[in-house]
Amino acid sequence: PDAADNMSDGARIVRYLREKHGVHRVVINLPVTRKIRRVLRDGDFKVTVTIAKTIREGGKNFVLNIQAGNWLERNFALAVDLGTTTIYGVLLDLYTGRVLAKAAEYNEQISYGEDVISRIIQAEKPRGLELMQELAASSINKVIEKLLRQSGVDLDELTSLTLAGNTTMSHLLLALEPHNIRRTPYVPVNTFFPPIRATDLGLKMPDHSVVMLYPAISSYVGGDIVAGVMGSGMYRTDKLSLFIDIGTNGEIVIGNREWLVCSACSAGPAFEGGGITHGMRAAAGAIRDFSIHPLTYEPMIITIANRPPLGICGSGLLIIIAALFELGVIDHRGYFQRELESPRIRQGRDGYEYVLVWGSESGTGSDIFLTEVDIENFLRAKAAIFAGVKTLLEEVGLTVADLEQVILAGTFGSFLDLDSAVTVGLLPEVEPEKVLYVGNGSLMGCWMSGVSNHIRRHVVEVVRRITNFELSEVIGFKDQYVASMFLPHTDLALFPYVGERLKSARSGTVRVRKEES
Amino acid sequence: PDAADNMSDGARIVRYLREKHGVHRVVINLPVTRKIRRVLRDGDFKVTVTIAKTIREGGKNFVLNIQAGNWLERNFALAVDLGTTTIYGVLLDLYTGRVLAKAAEYNEQISYGEDVISRIIQAEKPRGLELMQELAASSINKVIEKLLRQSGVDLDELTSLTLAGNTTMSHLLLALEPHNIRRTPYVPVNTFFPPIRATDLGLKMPDHSVVMLYPAISSYVGGDIVAGVMGSGMYRTDKLSLFIDIGTNGEIVIGNREWLVCSACSAGPAFEGGGITHGMRAAAGAIRDFSIHPLTYEPMIITIANRPPLGICGSGLLIIIAALFELGVIDHRGYFQRELESPRIRQGRDGYEYVLVWGSESGTGSDIFLTEVDIENFLRAKAAIFAGVKTLLEEVGLTVADLEQVILAGTFGSFLDLDSAVTVGLLPEVEPEKVLYVGNGSLMGCWMSGVSNHIRRHVVEVVRRITNFELSEVIGFKDQYVASMFLPHTDLALFPYVGERLKSARSGTVRVRKEES
Repeated sequence: PDAADNMSDGARIVRYLREKHGVHRVVINLPVTRKIRRVLRDGDFKVTVTIAKTIREGGKNFVLNIQAGNWLERNFALAVDLGTTTIYGVLLDLYTGRVLAKAAEYNEQISYGEDVISRIIQAEKPRGLELMQELAASSINKVIEKLLRQSGVDLDELTSLTLAGNTTMSHLLLALEPHNIRRTPYVPVNTFFPPIRATDLGLKMPDHSVVMLYPAISSYVGGDIVAGVMGSGMYRTDKLSLFIDIGTNGEIVIGNREWLVCSACSAGPAFEGGGITHGMRAAAGAIRDFSIHPLTYEPMIITIANRPPLGICGSGLLIIIAALFELGVIDHRGYFQRELESPRIRQGRDGYEYVLVWGSESGTGSDIFLTEVDIENFLRAKAAIFAGVKTLLEEVGLTVADLEQVILAGTFGSFLDLDSAVTVGLLPEVEPEKVLYVGNGSLMGCWMSGVSNHIRRHVVEVVRRITNFELSEVIGFKDQYVASMFLPHTDLALFPYVGERLKSARSGTVRVRKEES
Repeated sequence: PDAADNMSDGARIVRYLREKHGVHRVVINLPVTRKIRRVLRDGDFKVTVTIAKTIREGGKNFVLNIQAGNWLERNFALAVDLGTTTIYGVLLDLYTGRVLAKAAEYNEQISYGEDVISRIIQAEKPRGLELMQELAASSINKVIEKLLRQSGVDLDELTSLTLAGNTTMSHLLLALEPHNIRRTPYVPVNTFFPPIRATDLGLKMPDHSVVMLYPAISSYVGGDIVAGVMGSGMYRTDKLSLFIDIGTNGEIVIGNREWLVCSACSAGPAFEGGGITHGMRAAAGAIRDFSIHPLTYEPMIITIANRPPLGICGSGLLIIIAALFELGVIDHRGYFQRELESPRIRQGRDGYEYVLVWGSESGTGSDIFLTEVDIENFLRAKAAIFAGVKTLLEEVGLTVADLEQVILAGTFGSFLDLDSAVTVGLLPEVEPEKVLYVGNGSLMGCWMSGVSNHIRRHVVEVVRRITNFELSEVIGFKDQYVASMFLPHTDLALFPYVGERLKSARSGTVRVRKEES
């Protein structure tokens, strides 16, 4: 500045950004304004300005930080998937766009229950909401610490955190009352969240840093699913796609770049090993693969980490039921064939059951078996998902045969055996090359929005484009559900290839699982 | 909500505002979002939503508060003029637009010096800025307390505070480093201030309430002047107007609804009684009016509150010098006529002086007198103002004769005797009917923006329209200043009526001040 040009420090920055970078409507908030004078002079009027650029025409561009000298190459962001069980995070270099570190931590809320409903109940207790908020924040803080340690990035160099979680997790992180998420008609407090100062949430990040949350669609289709739609590229494909994230709730999105519909299906905990006599989470000792001798009905079992078997995880359960069904050990209703001669098939307390591991070989010292009640629980879960897919397709006037792509997201999706999933009728029959495994699509979506403003603009457009269906309100869903309670389905025309295979298997042709061939 | 319409609580409010009130781009911040669920249900979905409406096309409308039931008629705002000496506040009923209470308090910063420069020096010391900020906030808090007590309004019912102050006061309230305001080339940290949460400034207001500061023009033309331009209606008049606020700095704005130019003139403290041997602030005992017998040169004196005289305040000084000059007791250079025979005119330590009050009659026990040095200090002050007005007019190609309106703002302006001001050449010669006394124009401007969004939009337009001149940078200002160091001016053609009057007075015609006639 000189006497002929003595505009304010703030106006000088605004003018420079406008004239040299075409950035208009610049707003400098109070904490940054308080630093401007010193920083400009410390840097001899050469400074680095970090801006949260608007994603809409004519919006405001917020100055997040100002530093003396050139710090262009030191600017970092976080992307975090806030899961009910696990929190995954990555540290992004905003200059190169590269991922510098990855880390995960359990969600500390887990000691108050494994599913979102128990967390909501906890949040309804006195000071419960504050507690859930603090646990979410402290779990994220642990991930941040790990990421900083791994990458050598300094805390002060973090500019933003992009986060996605299901609707309940998003509510708890922001301390929004989740009460009505678990009560009809399932109304969340909000589905769009404005950018929030990280320190307002108790996150260990610099004062100037902001948290951006992925918007949700409804109480049971959350920001994690929206992020998955972004991360998987579904929002920009021409192909008619089915996006599916299977857990306690199965979230389904169908559509393409033009239109999108979604729904949540209450699958119950079977896919996570819940409600199954010997079910367990996917941890060391869980049966994750299984095959059966077509004549002796003796099993071959592989466990996670090759430990002595402790139980059955969700992906293992799927493979076991598919194999038992394919060899005719269970029928299309999920009942054991009473006449098969094998010591492994026996009548137990809950009706017929199949012994997977004898007590002498198990890690627990007791038999590990699968009951007809277990199978029925599984059928309910898979029926909820498939009926959801079929109902949603019918609502938009399409059929399973129209699907050009199936996108599998989430942990269960990553470990899901496609062949088995089709055999039991969990997923529609599509060619393997049409299936895309995206893993943690939520984290991928956060990573994408974290590094690109274009993606952030698309998120808003995508959310506006998604139509949510409450399946319980759709006439015909219940019928679809009942029809899907069979293996693979009452309507075998939906599964022509499975039908073919079953015919061969039942006619004596031995089919051996791929892995063993 | 029901199953067929189970959008989020937030989306429901946004939809209602859009559909029923045409309010678009509604943003609900985190603290309000945290209340929504409970408030909607407590009010059986009948609620009052308070919005800070955007002042620009396509801007965002922020939800400030949500309350169960109908609170339309209970919504209040504050307007505050943050003066260097005194803080004035009013409490506004936003439903009726009426003023419910008025209050004033000294600015507690005053114990660290009377003028802005000493406050800046204080702010430069370690923890000095925090101290100045806290004192500004606590002084405002006292005004707020008074206003609430007077009006019976509850603290929680306050929605906003609109505030104006000079550039230094605005900086100190926001804890912005004012250091360069007192150093060439006089660069403030910022002149535009975004809306700020009241609690972020330590103000005793509800969490959701916001503070809006009037934007400044430069280091010495502050938000108080902009507010005065608004409050006086100058921004929308067709008349070519001179707005003038006289204090330690004289701020001048010239223009009309089409264009505006402004400048600050460093007048020194004479108009506030500073730098004058017996000068004092306008308090009880200050000589506020004066007349002189044309033959005996004996004075007649009126003091504030009719107390025994203690000294001379700024407005009194103006009247005294005008009267002495008009009767020829002092000449056009401000020197006493040595040959006049009166015991009151004598040679003192600082050269010739005139005794206003003998010690026997004064409240101090000592003589109260006016010296030639005092008169010279006054001349410097009035010359700075007049030269500023004339220079600014010439910069835009106009002359004093073009002025159609003179607007006097500020405390000094309110008590200023127009006749005297013209006689000494402080103000240009205009007919009395062209003069508008607005009093505290700054407070009036805050009050107007506090109740009307239209005015707030105009403020932004007005500030963009104002061109600031640094007089020290304008060629010719120094000459104007020197030419103005005489009574009324070296160029008597500028003061034809004063010239006429002086001729009559000097030719023996007795002229008696209006008040006495």
